[in-house]
Amino acid sequence: MNKEFLIKYIYGIADNALILGQRLGELTGHGPTLEVDIALTNTSLDLFGQVRSYFQYAAQLSDEEITEDDIAFLRTEREYLNVLLVEQPNRDFAFVIGKQFLFDHFHFLLLTELQKSHDQTLVAIAKKSLKEVSYHKRFSSDWIKRLGDGTEESKQKMQTAIDDLWRFTDELFHLTENDKKAIKEGIGVDVSKLKETYYKNVAEVLEEATLDVPELNYFQEGGKKGIHSEHMGYLLTDMQYMQRTYPGMKW
Amino acid sequence: MNKEFLIKYIYGIADNALILGQRLGELTGHGPTLEVDIALTNTSLDLFGQVRSYFQYAAQLSDEEITEDDIAFLRTEREYLNVLLVEQPNRDFAFVIGKQFLFDHFHFLLLTELQKSHDQTLVAIAKKSLKEVSYHKRFSSDWIKRLGDGTEESKQKMQTAIDDLWRFTDELFHLTENDKKAIKEGIGVDVSKLKETYYKNVAEVLEEATLDVPELNYFQEGGKKGIHSEHMGYLLTDMQYMQRTYPGMKW
Repeated sequence: MNKEFLIKYIYGIADNALILGQRLGELTGHGPTLEVDIALTNTSLDLFGQVRSYFQYAAQLSDEEITEDDIAFLRTEREYLNVLLVEQPNRDFAFVIGKQFLFDHFHFLLLTELQKSHDQTLVAIAKKSLKEVSYHKRFSSDWIKRLGDGTEESKQKMQTAIDDLWRFTDELFHLTENDKKAIKEGIGVDVSKLKETYYKNVAEVLEEATLDVPELNYFQEGGKKGIHSEHMGYLLTDMQYMQRTYPGMKW
Repeated sequence: MNKEFLIKYIYGIADNALILGQRLGELTGHGPTLEVDIALTNTSLDLFGQVRSYFQYAAQLSDEEITEDDIAFLRTEREYLNVLLVEQPNRDFAFVIGKQFLFDHFHFLLLTELQKSHDQTLVAIAKKSLKEVSYHKRFSSDWIKRLGDGTEESKQKMQTAIDDLWRFTDELFHLTENDKKAIKEGIGVDVSKLKETYYKNVAEVLEEATLDVPELNYFQEGGKKGIHSEHMGYLLTDMQYMQRTYPGMKW
């Protein structure tokens, strides 16, 4: 079997966790309270743990002599396949929560379906990750409600974040050619089928939070094909600094 | 009983963990490998967890209506009582490990003794934290050996970091007037008595790492009295940004 498509499929899933985890990591020590700071940093650690499982598997599959760290740190921008949503900057706490919330609800549905894959390694990673992601989803949804249904100012900031980030949600459900191949092989998840449930679930939380569900007709996409927003370069420069400066940390 | 000295004594211990944890947090997503990144971030979380326990207790003791977060985020520079060592910048990975190593060995001895305090809350925090700190100490000591006894370049960088940071070690064993009072009350640890064991333990690891034990005649101090190095202001600006911008996160 040509494993290239499987490796690429794994990148498509794991890169979302990697880049979102990296963004969350920027917050360590900058949370609004010690408790939230610890919770968000824990979320970041959960995501990095998942990333390691995916990339260890991808490294095994590869014909090249590469490690999980080569995959995480040494690709060029166009080789990262994460969606645009997760690379968006933190701006303020409402953006952090909004981005997390919009991704968690997708992530939860994706992993639930990934448990049915014919690839048993992916099934195992999905099962383990799903427990963590249920917690992330509850945490971010709770904050959406707290800020949405809080003061006039918190409501307005939360609404601004959701409105701004909404245009990146459609891409979550796009299928690349590689995704289609993975679905055909019984390995990948047909994310296009998750769309309806996703928007329903997200809308329920927003309504409970007394926030408006945005009505948008234009969406942005590109990340899944390696075409990223202007923020991605800065993020990678930052993330790859250590590895590029001390290759393989051999000094 | 006048509890002011106890609160101040708690700050003296907890601020070290807070500021070191904050410095480690700067690294989340910037570790040399995913594994190290996760380990260092976990260390940071351990330290923040300890900080919460200490500050929750300090908030209880206080006559003012303050929370753990007020203590962590809303003091002025002179009110932070951490030693100069922990506020030193990361510079490179050798500095991160060197700082961690020099602090962990002290931290371990301090908590071991703190278990004998007459204050049962401090005893409980010390017991719980000691398990975490034994792990930190093992982790940083292992890296000292790996880098010291690694390549010519890693050895040289590790030696530079140890040489540079060494001048901050003496302060760990200084007693402030407040410390003396806490010792007299049977609550505080007489850190001056830990000095000999500390330098012996640290020297053993350095020798195993084929590194030289620095011989220094001058040391820097000040942090314990609230007089910090030029790095502290930047660190606090960064750390306090969220709380100062959104006081109490009430928006």
